[in-house]
This record gives sequence, C-alpha cells and structure tokens, in this order.
Amino acid sequence: MDTLFSKVTAVLPDGSVKNNAYVGVGAGIITYVGSEPPAEAALAVIDGTNKVLSPGLVNAHTHLPMTLLRGFADDMDLQTWLFEHIFPAEDKLTGELVYTGSLLALMECIASGTTSVSDMYFFESDVARAVAESGMKANLCRPFQGLENHETRLREATEMIEQYHGYDNGRILIDASVHAEYTSSPAIWEAAVRLASENHLRMHTHLSETAREHSECVAKYGMTPAAVFDRYGLFSVPVTAAHCVHVTDGDIVILAERGATAVHNPVSNLKLNSGVARVREWQKGGVNAALGTDGAASNNSLDLFEEMKAAAILASGENPLTAAGSLRLATVNGAVSQGRKSGQIAEGCDADLILLDFDKPHLLPLHNVISSLVYSARGSDVCLTMVSGKILYRDGEFLTIDRERVLRGARKAACIF
Amino acid sequence: MDTLFSKVTAVLPDGSVKNNAYVGVGAGIITYVGSEPPAEAALAVIDGTNKVLSPGLVNAHTHLPMTLLRGFADDMDLQTWLFEHIFPAEDKLTGELVYTGSLLALMECIASGTTSVSDMYFFESDVARAVAESGMKANLCRPFQGLENHETRLREATEMIEQYHGYDNGRILIDASVHAEYTSSPAIWEAAVRLASENHLRMHTHLSETAREHSECVAKYGMTPAAVFDRYGLFSVPVTAAHCVHVTDGDIVILAERGATAVHNPVSNLKLNSGVARVREWQKGGVNAALGTDGAASNNSLDLFEEMKAAAILASGENPLTAAGSLRLATVNGAVSQGRKSGQIAEGCDADLILLDFDKPHLLPLHNVISSLVYSARGSDVCLTMVSGKILYRDGEFLTIDRERVLRGARKAACIF
Repeated sequence: MDTLFSKVTAVLPDGSVKNNAYVGVGAGIITYVGSEPPAEAALAVIDGTNKVLSPGLVNAHTHLPMTLLRGFADDMDLQTWLFEHIFPAEDKLTGELVYTGSLLALMECIASGTTSVSDMYFFESDVARAVAESGMKANLCRPFQGLENHETRLREATEMIEQYHGYDNGRILIDASVHAEYTSSPAIWEAAVRLASENHLRMHTHLSETAREHSECVAKYGMTPAAVFDRYGLFSVPVTAAHCVHVTDGDIVILAERGATAVHNPVSNLKLNSGVARVREWQKGGVNAALGTDGAASNNSLDLFEEMKAAAILASGENPLTAAGSLRLATVNGAVSQGRKSGQIAEGCDADLILLDFDKPHLLPLHNVISSLVYSARGSDVCLTMVSGKILYRDGEFLTIDRERVLRGARKAACIF
Repeated sequence: MDTLFSKVTAVLPDGSVKNNAYVGVGAGIITYVGSEPPAEAALAVIDGTNKVLSPGLVNAHTHLPMTLLRGFADDMDLQTWLFEHIFPAEDKLTGELVYTGSLLALMECIASGTTSVSDMYFFESDVARAVAESGMKANLCRPFQGLENHETRLREATEMIEQYHGYDNGRILIDASVHAEYTSSPAIWEAAVRLASENHLRMHTHLSETAREHSECVAKYGMTPAAVFDRYGLFSVPVTAAHCVHVTDGDIVILAERGATAVHNPVSNLKLNSGVARVREWQKGGVNAALGTDGAASNNSLDLFEEMKAAAILASGENPLTAAGSLRLATVNGAVSQGRKSGQIAEGCDADLILLDFDKPHLLPLHNVISSLVYSARGSDVCLTMVSGKILYRDGEFLTIDRERVLRGARKAACIF
C-alpha cells in the first residue's frame, strides 16, 4: 500500500460518511476502505483528524486556457461577450500562451479540489502538454467548428490521439468534438462522428446554451439542436453536452435514450444571462447530469465548490437537488461523463481524492458533513489533492507545477490583449 | 499617523482603482489617500505589493448566533425549515451558547473581510458582549415579535441601549426591531416605533421574504407588509428591511419615499426557495440596496464575497447590477443602512479596511480589479481586516479572539441539539 488516510471522515458512495475511517491507496487505485486499520502496512500515512476525505471533483465542461481572459469582459450577455470581445481576443492566442493559461488554470483546479477536467479549446495539444506535466486527469478535445477545412481538424485530432489518447495509463483521453450547432454545419458533424466512431472516442459539445441559439436552430432546421444533432448521428457515440439550458422535454428524451450526459454550468449561465438549466428535469427524464464551471472568462472562477453550492440552491424547490445530489453531479456523474471509474471512495476506483481541513470557523459546528461540504466549504479548504494515487498539492504547495514561473508567465501573457 | 498602506492597489469610491497608492490611517479614520507617500510618518507601514485594499464589507442582515445551527436543517423551504426545525432548536439556546455562536460567526466574518454587521437575534446582549470583545462594528437588535409581553422586550432594549448604544466611539449601535409582519401585531409595531423615536434609533425588520408571507398579509390586512407597516408608522424612522423578495412596485415607492434600505440576501433566498429579489428595480425606484448573508443556518456561510458574486450574476440582464454595483451594495450602501460614515476609501471615513492577497492562481491575470474582486476572489483571500484603524485579523491569525477556545466551545455547543 502506497498511502493510507488514517482516522479520516470519508464520504461514501451512498452519500453517508464514515468517521474515523481508513482509506488505502496502491498503484493509483483505492485498495482499502474500512473502520479498522488495514493489515498491510503503508509507505506513507496521512493523519485525517478533523479532516474530510471526498472523491476528487470532476469539472465536466471547461476551457482551461481562458484563465488568460479572466475579467477581460464582464457584465454583458453571451452574444456580445463572445462575438465582440472573446473571439477577437482569442485571435491573438498562440500555443505557448495556451500552455501558460492551461497551467494557470490547472493550478486553480488542483488547489480547489478538482482532480479531472473535460476541456474544449484550440491549440489543444498545448493544453495536453500542460495537463501531462501537471498530473491532472483530463478528457481533451479540439472542437470542429466553422466553415473551415475540417481536414485540418481531422489531422490535428489524429495527431492528438496518437500522442495523448490513453497517455499515462489513461490519465489523458482525447474526445471528438463539435463546438456547437450554431458554429458549424452538418458536414462537420458527420466528420466528427466518423472520427469518434473509428477511434472509439466520446464526444463533447455545447448544446442549447442560449434561447437565441435554440430558436435560430429551430428556424433553420425545423428542429431543436438536440434533434438535428440526433438526425446526423451525433448521439451514436457517448456525448457530453454542455449547458442544455434551453432543451425541451423532447430533447431530454433524446439525451436520456442516447445515454448522453448534460453538464450544468449554473454560474456561467447566470453570468451570461443565459438562464437556469432544469437539472432536476434532466434527472427525472433519466439523463446523467454532471457539473462544470465553463471557462474562467465567463465565471470567473474554476472552483467547483462554488458551482456545487450554486447548483444546489438554484434547485431548492419541491423536488430539491439537495447537497448530496449536487456532490454526485460533481463527482461520480462527472466521471461517468468522462468514461472513467472514478468519483467514488470505493475499493477498485481510481484514487482521485481530496482532503479538506474542517478545523475552521466557517465549517463548524459539524451537524452534517455533506451539507457542510456543499454549502459551507470553499475550494480554499482543500489541503491535499491526489490524482491516481499521486499527490499534486499539499498544504498550499504545488508538487508538479512551478508556481512562480506560471504566475510570472500569466502576468506577462495578459499584456498582449 | 498610525498605519500606512504602501504601494497598494486601492479601490476608490467611484469604482475605479488607484495603483501604487498610499492610504494612511490615524485615530480610527482614513486620513490620507494619495499617489505619493504622505509627509507625516506612520507608526506601522504595511506593504501592499500585489495586494488590493478594499473598503471592509458590511453584512446588512444576519443572525450571528445561528452559526450553531449551520447544516442542522437543509434542503427544505422556509416555512418547514423555520417552524419544524429552527424554532424548536432555538428553544434550547442560552445566553452562553449565543455568546459562543456569535464569536464563531465573528471569526468567520472577520476572516472573510466583513468589518460591520447588522444583527438581529435573541439573547442579543450576549451577541453584544461577543461583538464588544471582537472589535467588530455592529448594529444590534433584539426583535419585538409574537404575542409575548412587549414590556419585557422594552426593558431589555432599554438595558441594551444604556449598556451598548454608542459603545467604543459608536462601534456598537443598538437598533429597534420588529421581527416581521407575520410574527407580530400592530401593538408591537407601535411599541417598537416609540422605542426608536424616543431613542433616535434605526429600525431593522424582515419584509416580504416569501410569497406566502406577502399574500397572507394582503388577505389579513388588505395591504402588503410594507403598506401595513407604513400605516402604523414604522417608516417614520430609518428602516433596514431584509429580503424584500416579494415587494410590489407600490412597496418600492414606499421604501424609496421613506428613505429605507432593502437588503438583498440572494443565497439564503435561493436556498430557502423564496425567490430572487428584484434588486435593480429597487434601485431604479430610488431605494438604497444593501447586501446580507442572513444567518448561517440558511446560507450556510457568512462570506460576503460569495454573496456579492451571487448578487451580480443573478442580475445580469439588460440592466445589469455589474461587479462595481455589487461591491457598492456590500460596502457604502451597507454603511448607509447602518447610519455610518464608512464603506469607502476616502479621507474622513472610518478606517474599516480589508487587504486581499492577489498573488494567487485564481486571481491572475488582473485585467480588471473590481471584476476580480467580485467574480474571482473568495473570503479566504483576505489577509488583513481592520476596523476603525485596529487590525483584527492578519495572515490567518485572529488578534482579538481566542480561536481554539471558540472552536472548542462551538463543537461542544452543537451537542445540545
């Protein structure tokens, strides 16, 4: 056994907690969960007194390099924000800048308890380079979009698959991707589906984020974005559909029948005035619901603790999401969306774990651990982040990323905009 | 000059920032704001490199001792939460428990950048005792409510006024209070108004928090809560009205004409499924809008950074609140609601100041300081909290409160529920 968390309060898959628990890790996998110390000795023992051990959080939809545009354009709706500010700024990006922005984002993710991300951006091989170095787990994609030559996209994707798909025992996976219905065309969708089918990839896309996108699609195709994607076979592979704020009841049926995941991004959706997704309706319809922050330019944070709380309080009606439900969105449901065996503290699962220090004024008293985790904890309460058994962050120190170099690079990068 | 913040990024009253600024403090007041070092020497100089100096935040509506009930009852609506869980639990409280819960809350407030609170609870003299020790600024009230003998309330209030109104150069002020329309009666309101008038106090109340409260009042009195309060003279004194989720356009006119403050509590209102207050409509109607967390039992946090972000993203429509607008809610508008000359970095204002460390991955790059303060910063980024020129918290250390004693007390207190 490599590592043993001793006398820790562990969050179990059923939403209950085990106090004074022992959780053992070997070869990147959780090998022991019990009330007594395991028979096997551990190379390292981590004291869990006054600490909570949770599955690491899964950010099921983000754009890591957009940290470089944090606070660059705020207080406007998505259309203005995207077409008048973000797209022109993104034209100035280079692979090196994307690499720096990704490392900055990964530091933020790791320090706030995220152990896996689903990222969609361009210069994605530079994102992959940053992810590879950082030790983070990730599903990565370069979206197909526009009227551009998708042969270029196919060549890039093929290179990414060869270099990174399955990297480091599957820590990095490459997804196929269509950016969104409103930024592409049927020929592009078919090419992306072929790529996914031939390489057994998952698919990551934006879906019905705004009312305008949704209604313009209906006007153009006589069908909703989900329906037109379905017509062109997009859902023949496992799809992660981000936002889904304006999906209809019929769209929910499509997503459920095709085994897709819908990713809730409540903070970004509110900030861009896109609305509040009907996450409980997705779930009632049988859709796997996961959680994402979207990019830091529209949030402006990558802290999934904030996102879990937002999701829970926004779905507090007669059929509430609840704290435990929101935690599932951000853990096991996210892992499902990535096709991974993770997001749970159970023997045989990936050792993607986070430890939180609960000996703090804003986390006491402790009537209900799950409630405190979702409604009271912040990303800054995370004191240890482990991915596949490897510690990436501990007591404020990054063990895989050169903090000062990245912060210096990020400050410099911002000057180009 | 007692303290000089040197080379700091200072947030100015007009929402702009001054880089490499010098801010001097003497005798509890801001005595200097400039781009050059002041002529007068300072006893202590605080380096502001990579740090942002903001006015301290004002929590314009909270119930400090409810920290003891953090996570005690979640994921239900206000009526169930209050009548079936909170009221029975509160029956078990004692003055000593309220004192401990208040100190716990004050630690959370101070560590997350709050410099003044408007508190409403019972055993309020024990809250005052905790506030007096902590160095926090506060407007405190014990609400008049129920069918109980308001003579008892009047006697308590008179004692509180004698002991604490104006305490420590006005650091503590006592407010009059009616708990809410639905928990009291006209005789109670008149007694509270008399108390306020005779002692030149402000008034703190709950107003139209839920649709049920609002409609039951209309059924009972043929008037909205604001209108019936106005009929009985409540608004003849300066009123701080918490929640106002269901106020009508007519109610907004009353609040504006009477110079009242409406306090937005977006997180608590969402969590208890009460709705989202129309804060931009309040403002358009001329109402002073402030910000509060409500109690930790319905939030479950007292972090105003979280609340500022929630307020801004919930009002992101055509006429957005904006980051700067949200910061005003939590600073100068809160100070107005308390009748204080604070909430701004300007010469002559109270030296209620907070310093934030911006040398962190989640706060870089820094395109827009105000945007980063509201959308990206967390309470945990506060590295120094000063109230009336006195430092209460610095680099994780509490200078006026015995951290270990209070955390021990809070753990023990929770066992009685």
